[in-house]
Amino acid sequence: MPHPLFEQHRPLLDGALRAIAERGYWAAFSENPSPKAYGDEAPEAGRAAFQGHLGKPFELDQPGQAGWHTDEKSPYGLALDVRYPVCDPQALMDAALRAMPAWQALGAEGRVGICLEILQRLNRQSFEIAHAVMMTSGQGWMMAFQAGGPHAQERGLEAVAYAWREMSFIPATSTWEKPQGKHPALVMEKHYEIIGRGVAVVIGCATFPTWNTYPGLFAALATGNPVILKPHGHVVLPAAITVRTIRAVLAENGLDPDLVTLCLPVSHEAAHTLYTHPDVHSIDYTGSNTFGRWLLDHCRQAQVYAELVGVNSIVIDSTDDYQGMLRNLAFTLSLYSGQMCTTSQALVIPAGGIDTDDGHKSYEQVCQDLAAAIDQFLSKPEVATAVLGAIQSDDTLRRIDQAAAGALGQVVLSPRAIVNPDFPQARVRTPVLLTCDAQDTTHFSQEQFGPISFLVRAPDTAAALALVEDLTRRHGALTWSIYSTREDVIDASIQSSWRAKVALSINFTGGVYVNQSAAYSDFHGTGGNPAANASYADSAFVANRFRVVQRRRHA
Amino acid sequence: MPHPLFEQHRPLLDGALRAIAERGYWAAFSENPSPKAYGDEAPEAGRAAFQGHLGKPFELDQPGQAGWHTDEKSPYGLALDVRYPVCDPQALMDAALRAMPAWQALGAEGRVGICLEILQRLNRQSFEIAHAVMMTSGQGWMMAFQAGGPHAQERGLEAVAYAWREMSFIPATSTWEKPQGKHPALVMEKHYEIIGRGVAVVIGCATFPTWNTYPGLFAALATGNPVILKPHGHVVLPAAITVRTIRAVLAENGLDPDLVTLCLPVSHEAAHTLYTHPDVHSIDYTGSNTFGRWLLDHCRQAQVYAELVGVNSIVIDSTDDYQGMLRNLAFTLSLYSGQMCTTSQALVIPAGGIDTDDGHKSYEQVCQDLAAAIDQFLSKPEVATAVLGAIQSDDTLRRIDQAAAGALGQVVLSPRAIVNPDFPQARVRTPVLLTCDAQDTTHFSQEQFGPISFLVRAPDTAAALALVEDLTRRHGALTWSIYSTREDVIDASIQSSWRAKVALSINFTGGVYVNQSAAYSDFHGTGGNPAANASYADSAFVANRFRVVQRRRHA
Repeated sequence: MPHPLFEQHRPLLDGALRAIAERGYWAAFSENPSPKAYGDEAPEAGRAAFQGHLGKPFELDQPGQAGWHTDEKSPYGLALDVRYPVCDPQALMDAALRAMPAWQALGAEGRVGICLEILQRLNRQSFEIAHAVMMTSGQGWMMAFQAGGPHAQERGLEAVAYAWREMSFIPATSTWEKPQGKHPALVMEKHYEIIGRGVAVVIGCATFPTWNTYPGLFAALATGNPVILKPHGHVVLPAAITVRTIRAVLAENGLDPDLVTLCLPVSHEAAHTLYTHPDVHSIDYTGSNTFGRWLLDHCRQAQVYAELVGVNSIVIDSTDDYQGMLRNLAFTLSLYSGQMCTTSQALVIPAGGIDTDDGHKSYEQVCQDLAAAIDQFLSKPEVATAVLGAIQSDDTLRRIDQAAAGALGQVVLSPRAIVNPDFPQARVRTPVLLTCDAQDTTHFSQEQFGPISFLVRAPDTAAALALVEDLTRRHGALTWSIYSTREDVIDASIQSSWRAKVALSINFTGGVYVNQSAAYSDFHGTGGNPAANASYADSAFVANRFRVVQRRRHA
Repeated sequence: MPHPLFEQHRPLLDGALRAIAERGYWAAFSENPSPKAYGDEAPEAGRAAFQGHLGKPFELDQPGQAGWHTDEKSPYGLALDVRYPVCDPQALMDAALRAMPAWQALGAEGRVGICLEILQRLNRQSFEIAHAVMMTSGQGWMMAFQAGGPHAQERGLEAVAYAWREMSFIPATSTWEKPQGKHPALVMEKHYEIIGRGVAVVIGCATFPTWNTYPGLFAALATGNPVILKPHGHVVLPAAITVRTIRAVLAENGLDPDLVTLCLPVSHEAAHTLYTHPDVHSIDYTGSNTFGRWLLDHCRQAQVYAELVGVNSIVIDSTDDYQGMLRNLAFTLSLYSGQMCTTSQALVIPAGGIDTDDGHKSYEQVCQDLAAAIDQFLSKPEVATAVLGAIQSDDTLRRIDQAAAGALGQVVLSPRAIVNPDFPQARVRTPVLLTCDAQDTTHFSQEQFGPISFLVRAPDTAAALALVEDLTRRHGALTWSIYSTREDVIDASIQSSWRAKVALSINFTGGVYVNQSAAYSDFHGTGGNPAANASYADSAFVANRFRVVQRRRHA
């Protein structure tokens, strides 16, 4: 008998399965933060729920609690003062292992049904989560709602769909009947049990605390694994809300809520002990190369799914829509102050300039025009604050100051501090544009996280493509964009993107941006260059999170 | 337009796809070495083809040839004197990378079509390959034909079917159309290109030079990767024949044969340089823990699919078919002189003995009866030589002598040397049985490769199950067998097998043996305990061998 939640949410699953097969546009959840989509009460109820967390302990009733975590910071300058349980990682581990057998016994349908119910419940909390994401990550409201709410939920649902597809291939039983000529056939009955690898640790990042967390979280959960969610220490609330909802759904369904816990280790050492624990069999991580490398080198007991940083590039060869290109790039470089793993950092332009529908433009002119386009786009303060959000980390703030002082390249657009009237303490900065020559690789070949981009002067388009391919192969990239009116250049960049294994966006001049990646349709990361060893989402993202243990006996 | 070979072999593929979905019995290739199945000429033609290789250079026309490899040995004492090309690994690597783009461009259908054609061609060479496998690995004739020929081909076909299933999920193109309310929809055209990870190295083993090689070889090839096949230095001919056939099929289809090459490095250092080469992105390996560990530790640039050694166990609690059990075990322990990664090593028996349909048997009685059953089974020399084959390596021979001398435990069955009249130089040995107590773990908890098994005396069945679970979790196992008439014991062993992630065989008393694993139906290895980090075959075995690189542009 199928699990009732599996039956109930079957249309949702079928929609996602169709979407990952066809890879067209599809959405399970509305990205419009409107009362029409979410109900008249939702906006205010979500705000109230968020406000209700502030200044209070966030109770989760987890085992091994030894204190409270109080280190959360808001880039908007809001005093959050939420206290989160600090639990002994070993106690969480023990509890996770205790909870695992019943989760396995539930079977793929039951687990998927529960995951879909969780996603539905999280969707109804989208306003609450959006406020939490905005105030901790520094995203603007619309991005916090969309990326933090429905888009993150879509990525979670996508992971569940992949997990289901792979698990559904495993028959529960089979009869193996081998003919023996004139003798009776050999007949065996076989059973196949899907078993999670073990405890999964999912490490959240500071900028996309749900979008980059839900894929690993739901992939691990659906395939039979307990999950210990370790959020960034400064960005906890979105993860805490998520964990509380998951635990509630588990408990309502007669399951041990300790299957999923929030972990805020007391120290780096305690965190490292958790990550290298022999019972941890997978780690999902989004963040710096340095720590990602550490995980890959030290957590050899686990499969590590790592999205690290890279150097995303754009080659501008020519365009038949110069103004559209400038507008598109201005938005791309401004959105969330470039604090996206997909934001372009190196814009490589031939020294001889580019042909456009508005005549030939010199390299210098393109630089000036892009700077002016960004200035123009951000000229209205309410647009600027909505698009830019706030600067999440002190490091990024320092990096912007460094870039503004000319330490990374020649400044063609200086960053400005903008006051957000709603949040006077918010640290808001406009992008900084630097110029440099292609051979001055020191700064642009390292990720300069935040609103810092380089307009790199290359000898010609061929050299620009070669530079970008080399950059991507050596340092990794999640995105790569080409502007050209010449099909031979586009063909060359396609070939180049194959060798560098990076997703390519061609001539984006309208309302789609290179730094956006759509669930079900766009693979986020190829898993084939140094920026990421996995992709959201594909079969490889889920297939090795479970194993099949068979048994056989004479029929 | 589909590739003609894909169309032609579509029924073969469809059969395999159905078989991996249902996991019942299915075979694409006859395991019967009869003229009826393979044609009247096949046996003699195969023998002649094999004989034709002896004493000659095995020309492959590969780049960078610097000499000849002459180190092959026959456990049957036959002088093979085949010389194989020794090529500079860097030259093979360069050639592989040159061949890769055209292989990618062929697409999934084309690559799968070619792989199926290769498998068909290898099938027609089954007699030739069987002689080669027999004379190099030391397998008996029937096993060499079945495991070396059709069964290996089935495992190759199985890997192709998994690869196809995963690749076929990736649409070549999609149209992404996102509604924008009253505004025109955003429309993007997207392309998805399947791209192999890079050069695959497949390292063959000495005992199953095709069965353990074809899964990785065909999984890597079908998913778009060039393959460098590095056979065991003493067991080359089956791999050389395979590579020659593949190269012929590639060339006939207008493809660069250097996509697949045979590599016999001049030294260990040269081999290590190959394995750690930055362009090597996957390694398939079957063999010792020591070297497998080395690969996992040093080849961090590659995905390593490793089947290592373990300690396969049997718990004997009780049986309702004592004679059937003894006969089954006698065959299992004798087959190919225990030189299978699936052969049972530790047979754990309660100190108080076991209940059987023939009355209660003491621990000592079971040991005596099993020794007698093996003696009886191998009493006819022609049966003995056919089943035992010959001892492949000097190390195994030494280990048997060591065990016979009592160095590993108390001897209850001494190994005998048997003369094979057809091959007087063949080194043939019958199994050695040792007894020891459960706490004397020193010897039985390490793999003693070859016909060496321990009859371990445990306090009781519960202790036996606990011991085996612990052994498996710490040292790994590919197989685990239980004999019991009590469902509670069987249930406990099922639970135990889940925790230890090992395949369980229950009460095997007939014509199926724990050390046999059937393509399409049995997962060979779970990939979840130290004996193997991958399984033949499942989605995880193929899904990460390719990546998808997308591109998108306005429609």
